Amino acid sequence: MRKIADSIDIRSREETYINIQPIQAAGRLTPEARKALIAYGDGYSTCDACRKPFRLDKISTPPIAPFHEQLASFLNMDVARVVPGARRGFQAVTSTLVNKGDSVIVSALAHYTEFLAVEEAGGIVKEVPLNEHKIVTADATAEKIEAVSQETGKLPVLVMIDHFDYQFANEHDVKSIAKVAHQYDIPFLYNGAYTVGVRPVNGKDIGADFVVGSGHKSMAAPAPSGVLATTDEWASKVFRTTQTVGDVTKRKFGIKEVEMLGCTLMGSTLIGMMASFPTVRERVNHWEDEVKKSNYLIDGLLAIEGGRVVSEYPRKHTLSKVDTSGNFDKVAQNHKRKGFFLSDELSSRGIVGEFAGATRVWKLNTYGLSWEKVRYVVDTFQDIADKYELQVNKETELQVNK
Amino acid sequence: MRKIADSIDIRSREETYINIQPIQAAGRLTPEARKALIAYGDGYSTCDACRKPFRLDKISTPPIAPFHEQLASFLNMDVARVVPGARRGFQAVTSTLVNKGDSVIVSALAHYTEFLAVEEAGGIVKEVPLNEHKIVTADATAEKIEAVSQETGKLPVLVMIDHFDYQFANEHDVKSIAKVAHQYDIPFLYNGAYTVGVRPVNGKDIGADFVVGSGHKSMAAPAPSGVLATTDEWASKVFRTTQTVGDVTKRKFGIKEVEMLGCTLMGSTLIGMMASFPTVRERVNHWEDEVKKSNYLIDGLLAIEGGRVVSEYPRKHTLSKVDTSGNFDKVAQNHKRKGFFLSDELSSRGIVGEFAGATRVWKLNTYGLSWEKVRYVVDTFQDIADKYELQVNKETELQVNK
Repeated sequence: MRKIADSIDIRSREETYINIQPIQAAGRLTPEARKALIAYGDGYSTCDACRKPFRLDKISTPPIAPFHEQLASFLNMDVARVVPGARRGFQAVTSTLVNKGDSVIVSALAHYTEFLAVEEAGGIVKEVPLNEHKIVTADATAEKIEAVSQETGKLPVLVMIDHFDYQFANEHDVKSIAKVAHQYDIPFLYNGAYTVGVRPVNGKDIGADFVVGSGHKSMAAPAPSGVLATTDEWASKVFRTTQTVGDVTKRKFGIKEVEMLGCTLMGSTLIGMMASFPTVRERVNHWEDEVKKSNYLIDGLLAIEGGRVVSEYPRKHTLSKVDTSGNFDKVAQNHKRKGFFLSDELSSRGIVGEFAGATRVWKLNTYGLSWEKVRYVVDTFQDIADKYELQVNKETELQVNK
Repeated sequence: MRKIADSIDIRSREETYINIQPIQAAGRLTPEARKALIAYGDGYSTCDACRKPFRLDKISTPPIAPFHEQLASFLNMDVARVVPGARRGFQAVTSTLVNKGDSVIVSALAHYTEFLAVEEAGGIVKEVPLNEHKIVTADATAEKIEAVSQETGKLPVLVMIDHFDYQFANEHDVKSIAKVAHQYDIPFLYNGAYTVGVRPVNGKDIGADFVVGSGHKSMAAPAPSGVLATTDEWASKVFRTTQTVGDVTKRKFGIKEVEMLGCTLMGSTLIGMMASFPTVRERVNHWEDEVKKSNYLIDGLLAIEGGRVVSEYPRKHTLSKVDTSGNFDKVAQNHKRKGFFLSDELSSRGIVGEFAGATRVWKLNTYGLSWEKVRYVVDTFQDIADKYELQVNKETELQVNK
């Protein structure tokens, strides 16, 4: 096969296969974003018509300024900025709010980038334990805030919770958690890496002081991209402009925002995000149907005897963690290809994206697959089960993980 | 004209025009990078074969791991990481080295992103004044270090100097400055935003502790991209891995680097950078010819009576600042289109990228233009001068800015 720059294989996974990879699904580019990559590939292509005051979010050709307003409005927040990935959104907030030794409340299912953003700012993460359903509740958050205050003598400076976590994509009670945070006068960061761009997110209704989303995870945008939105109250802090004056030259760059380090996303990354946005804004209205497809697939997997779903069930998200220790893994144990037998079977039938070799606990995502494809995926898993003489209980009661 | 997503004009500036824009020149994508954008547009496309230990710079398919080694070797440094723009490289270093109130030595021509990176870390920039040729010297740097030490009672914690500055693209004496910094045991950050990817950069020879480059500015890579390279000594600090342990879950993410916030560039941004790299690595060897073309163009502009070059001359870089107050601006004053007459004249002859409307002091860049195009640009400027009855002294002594 021809290679790019003689060393890089041409990737055609999305064109050739049905892809159930857990984090790739909602980041797949739209055709409009692909056009944007071609037309705006050069990094400074966004800057052709950059005029005073020389800041990315003020550029009107291409329509970057209106896009920023639309982004804020989409999330029902006051102000939005694009950032190089959700993690850089966390960083802007922690760098603003967290001083050395401060505590930050996160979920026991917090993504590692939240850990890093807190550590980078000199803070200490304090995890809220999960309840028996692997859910972060408002009560548990309140208890944790109390415990941290007692232990450290100081209130935590930030509560940041994932609406749907990266492990199980369970839904956590962000609205009640925001309320609890505010009872302690602690700002609340809503981590929408798995929601912004796939389902409706109403920041003000949730009570979020900050909403962070991921472009390449859930907004059909190139990487690294993301959004950080906030309220007017917090905008003046997290988007504060530079106060530095050159001691010799007396230079000032007063329009530049410190935490953004000036302009953030340029070229195809930003224009790709913008090009997908009309589609993204519309598609969140079809979330319920996406969830139906997710449940259809999970039900199809549960019908294979011994299968379990580790995520909460029924599913409220398209990302799910399943446990096939009781069926496919038993096959794997006696198969010369071990766990790879399942990958082989799937890929030979046009399905990729499960973690190759994994037949115990693994994740998958149905986002954006048509009903036809979801049905095909279910049929394929059940056909493979049949082939290896696993029982498929098409009408049986579903086995739900406890 | 058809628009992308009904709102974004298709950009064809590089295809349709000769572009002399000051910062776009060396960021223009190679054809290989354009292929990469098409094949790797999806953000997580780089992650298809991500295996333990699950870190971007360890992925071997596509060949991201070897690319990191090649990058380090290209700069003659020990370790390199890709970052979302040079500014994020500065930030990683300042966030590691600079505590609240610490001083950082920068040039009086430092880019604003250096100011912001220092401010974001809580530090204070201290500018080294320029000499009469608008050059930062080692002596001036030593004096500044002494003055800051006396004033604050503490040595600065970092010296960061641009090899070629963004204003004039004058060359500053980085090697001697590094030596001075080391005499005070202060680490030296070499800002290669205008060098890495266009001319050879030998970090160890310069004595750099950190080398920062910009992908979208000088490495024919998509935005936001850049490189931060360092020595083994400093790598353990700036690329330190997370020490955080979840207080409830006892989770550790020990392979993740705090300042990188884990993985940095994904998808087409990184693969585009990689796809251009073989070309970039080779093209730095032709820098002298690029500089010749730069001087040819400047000489051609100086031949128009009243023209001056504000940058050092002869040019050592392809980016230059010129002053046409003495010729084109005089025309502009009596022209109904004012300064835009020059943009009109140029664009009607197929040249774009000067700051539209500017006829006094403005910047241009010849990087990557063929000799044929450079000659055409000179002829065009002189033809326009002829048309407006400005004197063109083709054989006259050049007028150099004092």
